[in-house]
Order: sequence, then structure tokens, then C-alpha cells
Amino acid sequence: MISSLERLVEKLPFYECDKQVDAAMIFSETNRMYFSGFKSSDGIILLTRNECYFFVDFRYYEAAFNKVKNMEVVLASDFKSELLKIIKKHNIKNILLECNGLTLAESLKFEKLIESENVSFIKSNILDDIISSIRSIKEKNELENIKVAQEISEKALNELMSILKPGMSEKEIAFNLEFLLRKKGAQSIAFDLIVASGKNSSMPHATPTDKRLEIGDFVTIDMGAVYNGYCSDMTRTVALGKISEKQRSVYNLVLAAQNKAIQSIKSGVLCKKIDKIARNFIYENGYEGCFGHALGHGVGLEIHEGPFLSTRSEDVLKSGMVVTIEPGIYLKNEFGVRIEDMIVVTEQGCQNLTFANKELIVL
Amino acid sequence: MISSLERLVEKLPFYECDKQVDAAMIFSETNRMYFSGFKSSDGIILLTRNECYFFVDFRYYEAAFNKVKNMEVVLASDFKSELLKIIKKHNIKNILLECNGLTLAESLKFEKLIESENVSFIKSNILDDIISSIRSIKEKNELENIKVAQEISEKALNELMSILKPGMSEKEIAFNLEFLLRKKGAQSIAFDLIVASGKNSSMPHATPTDKRLEIGDFVTIDMGAVYNGYCSDMTRTVALGKISEKQRSVYNLVLAAQNKAIQSIKSGVLCKKIDKIARNFIYENGYEGCFGHALGHGVGLEIHEGPFLSTRSEDVLKSGMVVTIEPGIYLKNEFGVRIEDMIVVTEQGCQNLTFANKELIVL
Repeated sequence: MISSLERLVEKLPFYECDKQVDAAMIFSETNRMYFSGFKSSDGIILLTRNECYFFVDFRYYEAAFNKVKNMEVVLASDFKSELLKIIKKHNIKNILLECNGLTLAESLKFEKLIESENVSFIKSNILDDIISSIRSIKEKNELENIKVAQEISEKALNELMSILKPGMSEKEIAFNLEFLLRKKGAQSIAFDLIVASGKNSSMPHATPTDKRLEIGDFVTIDMGAVYNGYCSDMTRTVALGKISEKQRSVYNLVLAAQNKAIQSIKSGVLCKKIDKIARNFIYENGYEGCFGHALGHGVGLEIHEGPFLSTRSEDVLKSGMVVTIEPGIYLKNEFGVRIEDMIVVTEQGCQNLTFANKELIVL
Repeated sequence: MISSLERLVEKLPFYECDKQVDAAMIFSETNRMYFSGFKSSDGIILLTRNECYFFVDFRYYEAAFNKVKNMEVVLASDFKSELLKIIKKHNIKNILLECNGLTLAESLKFEKLIESENVSFIKSNILDDIISSIRSIKEKNELENIKVAQEISEKALNELMSILKPGMSEKEIAFNLEFLLRKKGAQSIAFDLIVASGKNSSMPHATPTDKRLEIGDFVTIDMGAVYNGYCSDMTRTVALGKISEKQRSVYNLVLAAQNKAIQSIKSGVLCKKIDKIARNFIYENGYEGCFGHALGHGVGLEIHEGPFLSTRSEDVLKSGMVVTIEPGIYLKNEFGVRIEDMIVVTEQGCQNLTFANKELIVL
């Protein structure tokens, strides 16, 4: 089996670009970890056709030197001189940049570093797109990690359900849930957990407040665990006590929209087509304009990564991709419902990685 | 008292730049929160001389509309058209960008948005530097939050000390410490906690491993809490059981270096001078090259922010700045020691915000 790094080298347009590409630079923490297996807040990967370098500062050098086996680890106390040495050694003229992994300020700084040299940076999304497409297809071990992260999430949700009751505040619930996730084995939470109840649930990305749960509330819980660096993502909306017919009907509409979308997933289908299936269904059933976010996104080392299932996405589903399907209906000053599963795309359809109950639960 | 936003508008070089600045755009989550008081993963602030706009997408619109009072909240479902409307309204020609808050990829995307318009972006660190200098001086309420974050940290450390013993793994300690921080009131941890023992402590930024504490180990614990968005930062190195004379002497050397640095702090002093005082002391006492990172950094909404206390920093200490002083000595394959306090700079000297014991503790 070839490694992710070899796959990247294969895909790099070393001789096919407008400008010939001699090297590529990777900056983002996640991509550095993906290709090197080493987690650090600092570092730069420089990839040439034949060699790969990992620059780290003093703080990480010893650890990186011990851990990174597929790259040459370079102590970059003086980054400029180390970089120029390698540029000279490989006669590098054009370096493709990972544009998502670099701030504009950093790119201005790097340009200054090389301004007196005969080297230029290629600023385009080529490298980002290649990496994103490699990362979007999950390897077996990546899938295993995502599955474990999801299992942790479901165990935590199960235990939370047994303690959820009117009078608890959103913040309390979020804290309890985070603790449960960690207790069940999450190395961290995948994002700031969302617990939104009553009117707050009409805000798709509400921050947990001191509001206490009341009878008749919908509670939307959007949660994820990280295991071995990999994320899971799931949303459930549950009801407290007696709810209205409108709440019930909106819930069932969102669920039906989600099921329709999931049933349409298979390798080769355009992501925006899946988004459209759920969106049209919601809009045609009386809730036009009430589903204001995208249907879903890829999940992996990042909680949001390619492919993107939105109205404008040109991404195509491929076997091995892990994506969320998370339609919602949000009614301002009333309530909101979102239901989110995590799915792995297969040649013939898909496999749902989420097993938590989706029928309307009234606690 | 003038608000941080008013201070920013005052400092912006609306009529003094090479190009006349008509507007400024702020992208980073932290700076958006600093100026608007609203926390969201998405949003853009556009500031003109007279008006300030906060663009958010559907997910955050309702919450932002309710919370943000010093800006006009704009629902940016179609960001381009909303942006162009405002550009026309104010006859904006040149927009200063926050270069640290924007990836290179995003900046390429924004350039595309405005390419057909008669508008250009000014890419320099002007705005970043102005914001960083405003943020580096802490307001009273900011200082209060930082102090509470530090109190939480010390309570957690105290409780951790009572359970620390040989046989516990670094990971277990880190998990317990995180839980204690949360239990004592931290909204989150300020960074991935560092627990490094024995030989691992020679790596300044080690990730906690399964290594178990042994008699004779130094354990370096670098920890921080977040309270109301504000961070604290502290490092203590404690010893288990019997330790060598060398360990003791290195510990005392680091502590003396730290004390010398702290005693030299006051408003008006160059940051690199403080770094040099600690560094020279360590180097002159036989450990040249064993202190490979900077002496310290500002702390606030971010765990690392200006000013920076490093060998090359041109920053100057000012009254109201909160900085860490964290010298260390790292001996590869042997052990490491780091001691870190958080200090607020005053006109005449400084006030130490860290009260945890620094004398060598042998558990």
C-alpha cells in the first residue's frame, strides 16, 4: 500500500503547471500531521520530487526527530538559512504553497525571506485541492478511528439522555456531555458542543446559555468526539414533555428530508444534488428559507473538510468519503430541529456510521 | 471611557497611508470577539470612518443581531453583493486587511470577489499591529478575567499535587488536570496541557505520553485555563522522590534566571532586554544552548499574543501588559526544567499574577 505522502508526490504537478513546480510547502497543523504522523503547533513540510523535509523549531525537534520517519527533520532555529540551503541543493525555482495553511501575513513574511533569491511562490489552490482530495478518501485505519470516535459519542449521548431533565441549563448539559465524551475515551471534543433549547434551538450554531430546559422545549445537541486525531459529528434533537403538533410535524419533515438525502448517496453523485434533494423536500413542504446552511461536509482530521454538500459545491461523492447529512428547519422565535448522521460513501450507496435513534424522543 | 472599537478607529491611518485607507476588514475569530463581544466561528467586520458592519451567515445572524450593539449586523447569504453595496455607499477605494486573520487562500478568494470593481486591498501588517498593540494593554475587566483564569489554574494545580504519585501516566495526569480546571470553573483549557516527566521533560513542548512517573523524575506541568474568553498560563516543574544534585542546581538556576528577569520588568523596557537578562544568566552559568525558546509572550484572549519577549523582539513593555516569564533548561536524554509566571507590567515594575509556590517541591 502506498503512503499518503507517496500519493501526494504522485499527484503533484511537478512538470505540468504553468510554471514548473519544483517543490511544495505545507504549513497547516492538520496536513503536517496527516503526512508526517507528528502533531505539533509549529513546523513546515517542504516536499521536492525526491526528498521531503520537516522543519521544526527547538521545542519540537527532539520529538519530531524520534517520530517522523518518512521525512528528514531539520532544526530550523534559523529558518531562512536552512530553507535557502535546501533551495540551492535541489535548484528549486518555483514553490507551490498550501494556501489554506498559511495566513496572508505569513505569506508576506515568506516572500520577504526569499526576495533576494531567484525563487518564486505559486499561489493557487492547486496543492490545497490535491491534499483535500487525498484526505477526503479515508484509509481503513482512518475509518476505524472515525468509527471509534462515533461510538464514543453515542455512548456519551446515551448516558446524557438518562440525566437530561427540565431545570438543567444548556451550559450544564454541555459540560456534562463533554465530561462524558472524555470519560468514554475522547481525546478531546471535536468542536464546541452545541446544546440549544426552546427558542435558542432556532439558531443553528447557538452557544450554550444559562437558559434552563422547560417542558415543551426541543433540545438540539450537536456533538463530536476526537479519537486518535479523528473527529465524529452527530446532531440529535429531542423533546421535553408535551410538544405541539407543529413541532412533531417539523421534526418528521427534517427526518424524512434526511432519509431521502441518505438514500440518494453513492459514489459518482454530485454533492449539490444530494443537498438539493433534502432542500427541495423541505422547501416544497412549506419551509422555504428555513434551512439556511449546507446539507453536510466531510469529516476526518478536521470536523469540517472536503467534500462539501452545499447548493454550489462542485464536489463529487467517492467511495471512502465520510460525510455528514444534517438538514434542519429553523423557525425564528419558535424552535429549530436538526438531525445529523455521519455516512461513509460506498460504490453502491452508503453505510451509516450513526446508530443513535432518530425517531422523535420525548423525554 | 472609550471602547476598544473607538480606539481602533482613532488609530487607523485613514488619511496617512501611502494609499488612503477608506476601510478596514477584520477576519479573525478573536479580533471579531474583542471588538464586537460576539463569539462565532464565522464573520467579518468591515470598518469605515463612520460606520462599522458585522457580516455573518445565516447560522449566526439571529444571535449576532441580538448581541452586537456597536455595529450594524448584516446577513451575508450573498457576501459579495452585500460587500459591494457597502463599498458603493461609502465610496470605498482602499481596504486595509487584517493579514493575520486571513489565509492566503481566503485573500485570493476576496481578490476575485472585487476584481471587477475599482477597489484594492492593502496588504501589510499595519492593521494587525494596531490591533495587537491595542489588545496588548489590558482593560480592567480583561485583567479581572485573566486573574480569575489564573486562580482557577492554581486551585486545580493544588488539587493535582495531592494526587500526583509515581505510577501515574502523563496522560492520566493531563486528563485529571483538565477535569480539575473545568471543575474549578474554566470554560475550557487554554491549550493542550503539557505533562512531561523524566527524559520527556527535556522536550519543551512534549505531548503527554503513556510514560509513568518514576522516583527521581522531574515533572513539568504547563497549564492554562480560559475564563470569559481570557487565558492564563503557568508552568511548574516538580520532583518525585529523590533527585540528583544536578537536578537541584539546574532547578535553582532556572528559578534565579526567572527572578532576575521579573525584577527587571517595568514600563518602557525593551522586551528583548528582559529575554537577554534571563538568557545570559543561564548561558553564563554553564548551560549555553540549553534554553532554545523565547522567554515569554503576552497573554489575553489568545494564549500567545503580543508583546513577545524574545532575542529579536522590538516590542516595548507598557503598563497594563500581561506577559509570561518562562525560562527553561533542557538537557537532552536527561531532564528539563521550566518555571513560568504570568506578570502584569506597571509603571514602576510589575505585579506577579502567579502565586503558586516556586521553591523546588519534592513529592
